Amino acid sequence: MPLSQTVAPVSRKTTETFGAESKTLGQQYFVSPEIFAKEQDRIFSKQWVLVGHQSQLAEVGDYFVVVVAGESLIIVRDQKSVIHAFYNVCRHRGTRLKEDTCGHGSAIRCPYHAWTYGLDGRLIGAPHMDQVQDFHRGDYSLHAVNVAVWEGFIFTNLADSPAPLDEWFAPLNGKFSHWNMPILRAAKRIDYDVKANWKLMFQNYSECYHCPGVHPMLSKVSPYDSAENDLTEGPFLGGFMKINKGAGLTMSGQACALPVGKIENLQEVFYYSIFPNMLLSLHPEYVMVHQLWPQSPERTLIMCDWFFHPQAFEREYFNPEDAVQFWDMTNKQDWRVCELSQQGIASRAYEPGPYSPRESIPAAWDGYYLRFIT
Amino acid sequence: MPLSQTVAPVSRKTTETFGAESKTLGQQYFVSPEIFAKEQDRIFSKQWVLVGHQSQLAEVGDYFVVVVAGESLIIVRDQKSVIHAFYNVCRHRGTRLKEDTCGHGSAIRCPYHAWTYGLDGRLIGAPHMDQVQDFHRGDYSLHAVNVAVWEGFIFTNLADSPAPLDEWFAPLNGKFSHWNMPILRAAKRIDYDVKANWKLMFQNYSECYHCPGVHPMLSKVSPYDSAENDLTEGPFLGGFMKINKGAGLTMSGQACALPVGKIENLQEVFYYSIFPNMLLSLHPEYVMVHQLWPQSPERTLIMCDWFFHPQAFEREYFNPEDAVQFWDMTNKQDWRVCELSQQGIASRAYEPGPYSPRESIPAAWDGYYLRFIT
Amino acid sequence: MPLSQTVAPVSRKTTETFGAESKTLGQQYFVSPEIFAKEQDRIFSKQWVLVGHQSQLAEVGDYFVVVVAGESLIIVRDQKSVIHAFYNVCRHRGTRLKEDTCGHGSAIRCPYHAWTYGLDGRLIGAPHMDQVQDFHRGDYSLHAVNVAVWEGFIFTNLADSPAPLDEWFAPLNGKFSHWNMPILRAAKRIDYDVKANWKLMFQNYSECYHCPGVHPMLSKVSPYDSAENDLTEGPFLGGFMKINKGAGLTMSGQACALPVGKIENLQEVFYYSIFPNMLLSLHPEYVMVHQLWPQSPERTLIMCDWFFHPQAFEREYFNPEDAVQFWDMTNKQDWRVCELSQQGIASRAYEPGPYSPRESIPAAWDGYYLRFIT
Repeated sequence: MPLSQTVAPVSRKTTETFGAESKTLGQQYFVSPEIFAKEQDRIFSKQWVLVGHQSQLAEVGDYFVVVVAGESLIIVRDQKSVIHAFYNVCRHRGTRLKEDTCGHGSAIRCPYHAWTYGLDGRLIGAPHMDQVQDFHRGDYSLHAVNVAVWEGFIFTNLADSPAPLDEWFAPLNGKFSHWNMPILRAAKRIDYDVKANWKLMFQNYSECYHCPGVHPMLSKVSPYDSAENDLTEGPFLGGFMKINKGAGLTMSGQACALPVGKIENLQEVFYYSIFPNMLLSLHPEYVMVHQLWPQSPERTLIMCDWFFHPQAFEREYFNPEDAVQFWDMTNKQDWRVCELSQQGIASRAYEPGPYSPRESIPAAWDGYYLRFIT
Repeated sequence: MPLSQTVAPVSRKTTETFGAESKTLGQQYFVSPEIFAKEQDRIFSKQWVLVGHQSQLAEVGDYFVVVVAGESLIIVRDQKSVIHAFYNVCRHRGTRLKEDTCGHGSAIRCPYHAWTYGLDGRLIGAPHMDQVQDFHRGDYSLHAVNVAVWEGFIFTNLADSPAPLDEWFAPLNGKFSHWNMPILRAAKRIDYDVKANWKLMFQNYSECYHCPGVHPMLSKVSPYDSAENDLTEGPFLGGFMKINKGAGLTMSGQACALPVGKIENLQEVFYYSIFPNMLLSLHPEYVMVHQLWPQSPERTLIMCDWFFHPQAFEREYFNPEDAVQFWDMTNKQDWRVCELSQQGIASRAYEPGPYSPRESIPAAWDGYYLRFIT
Repeated sequence: MPLSQTVAPVSRKTTETFGAESKTLGQQYFVSPEIFAKEQDRIFSKQWVLVGHQSQLAEVGDYFVVVVAGESLIIVRDQKSVIHAFYNVCRHRGTRLKEDTCGHGSAIRCPYHAWTYGLDGRLIGAPHMDQVQDFHRGDYSLHAVNVAVWEGFIFTNLADSPAPLDEWFAPLNGKFSHWNMPILRAAKRIDYDVKANWKLMFQNYSECYHCPGVHPMLSKVSPYDSAENDLTEGPFLGGFMKINKGAGLTMSGQACALPVGKIENLQEVFYYSIFPNMLLSLHPEYVMVHQLWPQSPERTLIMCDWFFHPQAFEREYFNPEDAVQFWDMTNKQDWRVCELSQQGIASRAYEPGPYSPRESIPAAWDGYYLRFIT
């Protein structure tokens, strides 16, 4: 069901009446090591998770390293331009192969005893091992991980035989084509180390009830009550908000780059959460993407990228920092209240509280999440 | 049983004969996470604990934040001048309400979604919640904690229905009235982070057997063998020591302020431990109070306040640093040997050792403590 | 069975054929807290472990402090020149007696209440304890630990009644006499904090298969394939490597001191591992000794000493830094790959990999180690 860029307004309204039964998750979901382990096992080790964008692997031999569910993975483009994902572990004595976060090379050589693998993972060199009886190089390829691309974004899945990524994203087919995401390039990445459970960031992202108090500058240019949702249940949730005439989501209030595509309405911004670790914010002239990486019940690493049209980089008026600084400020305002929530929820006095009508998407996110845990 | 300031000398002597059976506590009491959890549950979550002094809440709307048994509490004076204690947790999504350690305000507003509570804890504002069926503000007051005042000091109790604070302190009724504690004001607070079990600080405070080796300056002005005890069992323990003629417990050896009250004998200092987290040191011209906050079996935060008569602050010869520096030096000497004890006790070679006759108060403290744990 | 310094070449060759069944240890041996606890209990608390060299206790009253299996020990030379080892714990209230790492004194006095012990561990002073019924000083000597010396090196054993150290080292009787180890003196100690399991350092030390990639400078002067092993099973493992003519294992390539003894062949260096915590590297002009101290499954402290002939210190051309810097560089190259192995082995993708013919000593070490754990 391809949706137009302006989004079919099936449920384009906030709920008017709202059941009193909708409450926040119990304390254990935010502090329990057992539930955290379950999440890492059932969600981050079994679902497709965002790890990057294909622009990070522009050339044959480019690679980058990510950590998924505690596992270091090498994502690499091979000589045939195919993207692979491998566990970052030598088959000889288990040595970590790549220490750096990204790089380029024609092969993967272990720094310890120089066992060498092709970019497709096959063992192509192992000194002195020909003297070992019954040793066959073919038995010692790097361990591979499922990898696939959606709209230019690279996802991996640690499960043995997961359903294809295309199937997973079928409901969103074509919905974002106006934003040209496969060809975009990142101008900036900022990493955040947040002392809060990863779910609090989803709940925070999914409502603007908090905007008046937390984001004075954002609220000035994008009214908090202009939020309307078009995806209201399942793994993909969100909608859009209006930007005031003559305003923009940058420090200057001006557009900071040429549009990423044929965007009809320049006064709208779209916010979607993609279960389990992607926040997708679609602006007229840039796409902002958060990756969320839970580290413990109380800590999450967040990587935020700002993507622009490749031609934007060559224009004189290109000023990505204008958007980056605006959102870096806004991100930090959000992480602060998420950290305060984490602190309060850990109290024996905490009990699930009532969601407001402006928090229907967090409630929907909780509901989808609970399917994996209970 | 009001006691005179010079204290009825019921047992005003050190024990002459001393049973060989009196030994230090076993290792587990200093290192076991299970016993630590028991202490937090049975003592710090069920007993009255010192959290501050009413001078910290001089005005309506003044508040401060403390952590009791891992729980952040807001202590606040309301419009009717009543002191309240609340869990620092918003009833909406659990957010920590106050991040600062103290401040002033006419209401308590959540930094996340602006839910607002009166100084008496009642929910007085919750945007959009009127749209929620069956939502009643009266159901969402802040969770309250028992609070009461003794001699100007504020105590809280996390238990549901504890015996009144007055009952607890009845045995000390009037004993300290000469020191005017309700009207005193603190000139200084110093925080200490000590890598030792909290009980070691009580045992350290309760004897001067260690003074010759550990406190050369103190021992010079206040002979270690002048210690006499008047409270020798139960939750309140201690006695007094002499100060040499012409000497004082300050760096200069001079009095550093006018007396806190009508103190008969200026050559005596009184030391009492108040179970479970208060050390009360009564000097002629100042009152020093330690709060002990166990953080783990091996770590304790200690806050030390020095209180003076409010009129002392206006006198020309007022020099509180003269006392503060003396005791800061002495405190640190004590924390060092407590840390060394913690290290040694953790050894497999440790076994309970024999208390000397000079350590009858530590032995009594251990005995009272054990009632809660065994 | 005394072996000559040039070593009887019983098995002086690398294995030509090598069984395919020889594989690295399973993941649990490198990450499991349970196995770590077993190692601390069965190996580090029951076996003789290296703690230092008698040159550290040159005078009566000299002492140093070490930590064995989490236990702080005082190693001290008493008035009769006998070396003792004691738990660093006062018998009164458990206080750590010595905070410093080494020093000198005529007695051991507790810093808390001044209980005082002779250098032989007997309690010789305890103020006021004569007032305690049935208190006998003789009952409160310091707790002693087994201690013995081999070739000048001091070993302790926390077991109750271990077999004598001489018996343990009987197979090496006289093997190293040419190096004069009892009279050597250390010119330098360097401590390393390595984020890797201690066994990885033994496995690393025991093969030079990694040398071409990891140690370019070492490989240039000492060919990796010149390694020949003479001790190939049991607690003592190793052999020797050749040094190229005109080269040396120093930064300059020159000898940096006079020989430690009557070394026949100046172009050979001997490398032995002594289970469980000693690496013994015998050069013509210095002896390098590593002590390995496991801190957790993932962390090891390593102390490396460089010993020279006492007369070397007086010679003009004595330049110990020439050797120290060479090996400090080489040590750090080794610790890096050990840390990378630790990281990779912790992955779910790790599985035991095949040892090459050049890794027969690591395989033998694993086999000996497993006797204690399985």
